[in-house]
Amino acid sequence: MSERNTQVLLRTRPEGKLSPDHFEIRQVAMPEAADGEVVVRSVLLSLDAANRAWMQGATYKSAVEEGDVMHGYAIGEVVTGGERFEPGDLVAGELGWQQYAAMREKALQRMPDHRPISHLHSLLGIAGKTAYHGLLNVAGIEAEETLLVSAAAGSVGSIVGQIGRIRGAHVVGIAGGAEKCAWVRDELGFHACIDYKNDDVAEAIRRHCPNGVDVYFDNVGGPILQAALFAMNLRGRIACCGAVSQYDTAEPRSPAGIPGLLVVKRLRMEGFIVMDFADRDDEAQRDLLEWSRSGELRVAEDVLEGIESAPAGLVGLLAGENRGKRMVRVGPDPA
Amino acid sequence: MSERNTQVLLRTRPEGKLSPDHFEIRQVAMPEAADGEVVVRSVLLSLDAANRAWMQGATYKSAVEEGDVMHGYAIGEVVTGGERFEPGDLVAGELGWQQYAAMREKALQRMPDHRPISHLHSLLGIAGKTAYHGLLNVAGIEAEETLLVSAAAGSVGSIVGQIGRIRGAHVVGIAGGAEKCAWVRDELGFHACIDYKNDDVAEAIRRHCPNGVDVYFDNVGGPILQAALFAMNLRGRIACCGAVSQYDTAEPRSPAGIPGLLVVKRLRMEGFIVMDFADRDDEAQRDLLEWSRSGELRVAEDVLEGIESAPAGLVGLLAGENRGKRMVRVGPDPA
Repeated sequence: MSERNTQVLLRTRPEGKLSPDHFEIRQVAMPEAADGEVVVRSVLLSLDAANRAWMQGATYKSAVEEGDVMHGYAIGEVVTGGERFEPGDLVAGELGWQQYAAMREKALQRMPDHRPISHLHSLLGIAGKTAYHGLLNVAGIEAEETLLVSAAAGSVGSIVGQIGRIRGAHVVGIAGGAEKCAWVRDELGFHACIDYKNDDVAEAIRRHCPNGVDVYFDNVGGPILQAALFAMNLRGRIACCGAVSQYDTAEPRSPAGIPGLLVVKRLRMEGFIVMDFADRDDEAQRDLLEWSRSGELRVAEDVLEGIESAPAGLVGLLAGENRGKRMVRVGPDPA
Repeated sequence: MSERNTQVLLRTRPEGKLSPDHFEIRQVAMPEAADGEVVVRSVLLSLDAANRAWMQGATYKSAVEEGDVMHGYAIGEVVTGGERFEPGDLVAGELGWQQYAAMREKALQRMPDHRPISHLHSLLGIAGKTAYHGLLNVAGIEAEETLLVSAAAGSVGSIVGQIGRIRGAHVVGIAGGAEKCAWVRDELGFHACIDYKNDDVAEAIRRHCPNGVDVYFDNVGGPILQAALFAMNLRGRIACCGAVSQYDTAEPRSPAGIPGLLVVKRLRMEGFIVMDFADRDDEAQRDLLEWSRSGELRVAEDVLEGIESAPAGLVGLLAGENRGKRMVRVGPDPA
């Protein structure tokens, strides 16, 4: 192969807000597979708010260091065979922000033959499974309960609210901007959506959740988590999925009233990561696929073109410009 | 009856630290029972950190207002009979800080014939049941796990740590002062006790919890909760029982890293109140009694004499001067 490999590196670690200037694009020689490795061609790269958190330090994985090829989870096609994989196999793993990666076979996961492949990132991927496990296996939701979801137009929130609706809950989203809120209501079928950029969030929660909030699915942390805490009903549950409002800053802030509000209202706040529920993924995928096929659950995807679009794509995602699951098409689907 | 009734009123609501000056003692005429009421003579009044929280505003009960007889939970003897109760019956309820109270019969709970009566406040009362349900039914604890308990010399913490020891956990307490810490270790059998007044708490947690913390039983909130959050293991559980460090102040503070730490470590923080587990009280009382009778669990009580001692007794409790369950003997046991 005489092709070159395009990579995106983290040039400097951001101190405050992330910008495309923190990244650098370069061309290098094609990777070669060492013993136990295969070369994988990236097809669809997932962009996630968590990418930004990885730059703040070690989370559930090691931090991204300056000069590293930016870390990222992608679906790709095996191009040089190894012991477990053959050319043409569809796999997923931490391929990073690049067109080609030499990967240890053990670090790859075989992907099912499902089309469109993009669903393996959205409906059936981390987004869909995070929504499913977080709402049903961490928080729990009952018919007639009130569910509040932040980042409601995002990859996870858009599915959380729809599952809540399917389960018979009163579903209220929170998103940024009137247009996005209208989309959340009209296209995704949330009962209401609060515009945190223009509404008084605390007042709007009271208005749209007249019976209080039983479950808050938190993707953002910060002041919206604070407003939700005050609105929670006795024995309410908060599924802590992320804190996107707190990633893109040098000074994360915590809500007041912890632990006092938890005691007085007997609240449960629980952090989770989708991998914790791998043993129940089959059930999640079966339900999600069924809801999608019946038309009850709409899959929202937001696909950018070319690995070079990843830096601006992540910055835009942190600013909330995406609708549904954002990803980057790095190369064509396997034949 | 020509006797007088001694009462303690909340004279002014504290803005910062509570002092005995916020209270007033007065003598009034004996109460008379209206329809549906009985007169109860107080025997043992419970003093609790929550008494201070009641002055900050509505919690799970209405706030104490200036001029009110101070609210308080006490065990007493019925002196004038009604429909449900006869003179001599042992009852408990919100008698307040006074020698005699006219109480609606519906607001009273019949107490079992157990001696010493003080155990109905400590081992078998709110303290013991809070410890039991919080550790076993909220947090959960397994043998070999590490349990960290704040306010370890207090009414609840002293029992939590002992239950943890009985269940085979590695138990580390946090208390104020070397002498109190020695008592927690030597008399209650905790494996270690950290002196938050003199030790570097974060460093001491690392030293005494070499395998990290699986369960933190939080009675205090504030900086100690913060240190515990950083020391928690993956999938750790925090039972939020109270926030005594935050009651006696006009400016409660929350720990940093919420919800980020909860997500990264998949932590569960859950507030609870003992009444939520009333349906499992029989089980709690049976186990507690058995552990006490076998000598595995030591009951620590701290009894002050006379209703006039209640104000200084509560102030001292908030400063951590008690060992075990603090209460006030208001009058003699029923014959």
